[in-house]
Amino acid sequence: MKGLMMDYQLTLPTFLRRAETYFPDKQIVTRLPDRSFHRYTYRDLGRRSRQLAVALQKLGLERGDRVATLCWNHYQHNECYLGIPCGGFVLHTLNLRLHPADLAYIASHAGDRAVVVDRALLPLLEQFRGETPIEHVLVVEDSYEELLATADPDEWRDPELDENEAAAMCYTSGTTGRPKGVVYSHRSTVLHTLGVASGAPLGLALSEEDVFLPVVPMFHANAWGYPYLAAMMGANLVYPGPHLDGESLLDAFVQERVTWTAGVPTIWLGILAQLDANPGKWDLSHMKGMLIGGSAPPRAMIDAFKQRHGLNVVHGWGMTETSPVASVSDLPGDLRHADWEKQLDYISLQGLPLPFVELRARDSEGKDVPWDDRTMGELEIRGPWVASGYYETPEQADRWTEDGWFKTGDIVTLHPDGFIHIQDRTKDVIKSGGEWISSVELENALMGHPAVAEAAVIGIPDEKWFERPLGVVVMRPGQSASPEELREFLAPNFAKWWLPDRFEVVEAIPKTGVGKFKKTELREMFVDAPAQAT
Amino acid sequence: MKGLMMDYQLTLPTFLRRAETYFPDKQIVTRLPDRSFHRYTYRDLGRRSRQLAVALQKLGLERGDRVATLCWNHYQHNECYLGIPCGGFVLHTLNLRLHPADLAYIASHAGDRAVVVDRALLPLLEQFRGETPIEHVLVVEDSYEELLATADPDEWRDPELDENEAAAMCYTSGTTGRPKGVVYSHRSTVLHTLGVASGAPLGLALSEEDVFLPVVPMFHANAWGYPYLAAMMGANLVYPGPHLDGESLLDAFVQERVTWTAGVPTIWLGILAQLDANPGKWDLSHMKGMLIGGSAPPRAMIDAFKQRHGLNVVHGWGMTETSPVASVSDLPGDLRHADWEKQLDYISLQGLPLPFVELRARDSEGKDVPWDDRTMGELEIRGPWVASGYYETPEQADRWTEDGWFKTGDIVTLHPDGFIHIQDRTKDVIKSGGEWISSVELENALMGHPAVAEAAVIGIPDEKWFERPLGVVVMRPGQSASPEELREFLAPNFAKWWLPDRFEVVEAIPKTGVGKFKKTELREMFVDAPAQAT
Repeated sequence: MKGLMMDYQLTLPTFLRRAETYFPDKQIVTRLPDRSFHRYTYRDLGRRSRQLAVALQKLGLERGDRVATLCWNHYQHNECYLGIPCGGFVLHTLNLRLHPADLAYIASHAGDRAVVVDRALLPLLEQFRGETPIEHVLVVEDSYEELLATADPDEWRDPELDENEAAAMCYTSGTTGRPKGVVYSHRSTVLHTLGVASGAPLGLALSEEDVFLPVVPMFHANAWGYPYLAAMMGANLVYPGPHLDGESLLDAFVQERVTWTAGVPTIWLGILAQLDANPGKWDLSHMKGMLIGGSAPPRAMIDAFKQRHGLNVVHGWGMTETSPVASVSDLPGDLRHADWEKQLDYISLQGLPLPFVELRARDSEGKDVPWDDRTMGELEIRGPWVASGYYETPEQADRWTEDGWFKTGDIVTLHPDGFIHIQDRTKDVIKSGGEWISSVELENALMGHPAVAEAAVIGIPDEKWFERPLGVVVMRPGQSASPEELREFLAPNFAKWWLPDRFEVVEAIPKTGVGKFKKTELREMFVDAPAQAT
Repeated sequence: MKGLMMDYQLTLPTFLRRAETYFPDKQIVTRLPDRSFHRYTYRDLGRRSRQLAVALQKLGLERGDRVATLCWNHYQHNECYLGIPCGGFVLHTLNLRLHPADLAYIASHAGDRAVVVDRALLPLLEQFRGETPIEHVLVVEDSYEELLATADPDEWRDPELDENEAAAMCYTSGTTGRPKGVVYSHRSTVLHTLGVASGAPLGLALSEEDVFLPVVPMFHANAWGYPYLAAMMGANLVYPGPHLDGESLLDAFVQERVTWTAGVPTIWLGILAQLDANPGKWDLSHMKGMLIGGSAPPRAMIDAFKQRHGLNVVHGWGMTETSPVASVSDLPGDLRHADWEKQLDYISLQGLPLPFVELRARDSEGKDVPWDDRTMGELEIRGPWVASGYYETPEQADRWTEDGWFKTGDIVTLHPDGFIHIQDRTKDVIKSGGEWISSVELENALMGHPAVAEAAVIGIPDEKWFERPLGVVVMRPGQSASPEELREFLAPNFAKWWLPDRFEVVEAIPKTGVGKFKKTELREMFVDAPAQAT
């Protein structure tokens, strides 16, 4: 028996109409390259997004064509987030931190026909555009405006898309292999937005009263869904433009009375350093929470924000393949009144899944691991905003299980309360004597040593044990610690066989385009090199 | 171009798994007929719901078969809300306040094959069962338990339903014509739940920390979605059983530290009377809000709860046909800091739509009315949780417009800020001299008169004006007011031609099964009757 309910498709034009209709006077503020602030409203956003949709149609683009962006975070990028899919096209955000050769591959593989680009990023575009099918280059500061001027917003008609049509694409910048394209549908994006909005009592549930500043780049995984969440809820937005240093962000938080913000851990290290160095300089009493995702924030950082500055860190987990928000480490009520150390234990975990996200972890034999926070397994996930495949990359089909779950590549334990506890990546976990050693656990512990600024731990081949851990550390300026001191520092918290046999001191740890450690490069550096400091 | 995201169907078994997995220790408390309290957890709910699903399959019921309930609000009814749809069957809630002849019609029309019934309601069932196709009668206090005992919860398998399959049915008890069946799909119910959870900053967004007591009967419109919302969010539930008097409810609010509750205005009148009569008796400091829906709460009532008892009324609007929540009169941030009278102006309205609910109002010529809070039109609605038709009732097809919107039958004005302002029902609005007079506005105003307990206003035929308003009032015990006094009381706020020419005093106003005024009956009483008090 079928339900008798409207066949109402879940597509992004609904967000456009909602924001224009019910929140026309809410503000979108952007810090421009010259550090001044541009202000306009959702009324303006709606008008210009519709103009963009119409103008792209007039350019001759057709339904389903990919339109790329190569931009920082600003209001025009927000217009692309709405206008491109609402015109029936596919928004393809390019990561401006990638190597031009990767960008050439990605734009060609996706078949991008047009690109919206910041003037400051034109030199980057010129390095790879020739190798791509891009026909139209729209420069944010001039030709983009000229294009918009060709279109009457009232000409826009909802293209009445099927909810399963593509809305956006984003390539994952894996540390190994070619980048792989994730294709979000209108439906997955809408459900992700609803899931995030409803998922957490404290977490991410922006309201119409909030002022949100997304530090997360809009070229990362759907901008974590914030442009859509803000439009649905009518929240004010503040875009930092290219000004992502701690001081600029803190100034913007104060000036715009920001209540929520979100970004990767490295950004927060800069902010924490500024706050520590300038006590009382910034009044952040209106800040309700700071979402940290992309990679796990060190426990010490969460603690420092809370204890020294009264700021709440909310820790989320997800991947490009999961739209991206999958879980939020928000505290259930009974824990919210626990002592701070216990709260910290939970906030440091990767949280509980949003509604409609389902999780399991399986060991190397494919058996579900018990929820004991001890047995490691690979995390698998399914849900309406999880990818079912990569764009035209059949060789990656083994990332999905036979029964249709996505293999995240994260090695986790599951807490008895259901919280995810990421231990490592499948490719980074160190296989020693038939057991697994978490490189991430060791790294986090090492970064708690007063002399250590950064630390990465990699597995290097070992005849007897198969692999053994090697610690690569960056010392704080003017500080040092011997391998023996580092081992002693770790010893109380780890089994003896977990302790790295060898340490290397480096000037900097190589990182990927999204700020993660490039462990492949580290392995190449040290696997065959003689020990320098054992 | 299609998205590449999982084809994850939006079905109710996901709620069952989520509640069992992540909130196993959260409580569901029920007040039993003998006034004692029964307590169990979501773990128990999950186990027993799965048992119910398996047991119904063993009874020989088939996918899509309708299983009725004839019950008050209690944990077994909650099990039916989950177990029946999770078994692949269709939950059909019967309204125990309807006439047996109507129940016979409804159960036959729906083709119910089984019914779960409270022992106290067996005499009612026996009055109509013979005229229905019901094969299996499961009495909550005995044969229902015996049935569950036949099934192993681990035998349950997700039936892997298509999201568009039916999950539940509810008949609208119209004041005219035959009851009409609304058929909710799994998809519509899931999206309604997500929409409600995300829709309002303050409104209905239950969290895992909340304790919710639904006064709204579970035989009304999907129980306003609360069983599903609570399961998704992990909120504690408190069911009042048949004890719906003000004192019993207030005692339960205090004992269980209830934070949210919801019901129709008549319930709140009883609660307000108790609070007024016993100042300080009940400590409701933990109560965050009381949702009032079903019909509009009088402004004076909202004011009284806030001013005299510090309690927040949240006003929602919806219909059986809209799953039912369509809008919530939650205050945007700028109004939340306005003076109380202005806040009250907005809370008294029917609010702003939830995400993915779209609204318009059209006049008798089909033209969209301006948002001036002055021009009346019929409210039309569309969205993923709005009915597209009634079950096997083709003669009602004219309730939908040619472009697929549902005609609500509500005459509204739209506020410049987008708030809905219900003026009347299409069939109750009084057509006088080519203009419309809102019976509801007059009723609300009359109920503000100190001598008036209840008031209904109906249109009676008039040779010159087509119709003229007649006021029917119930006086408070020992009080009275002359028609002249009532007209004078109304005069400052209404055009002269709106004032009723005639008033009738009655002992009680006849009401429908869901507590609405039965205006058809009033019209029959007074249209041809001589004036008693003009």
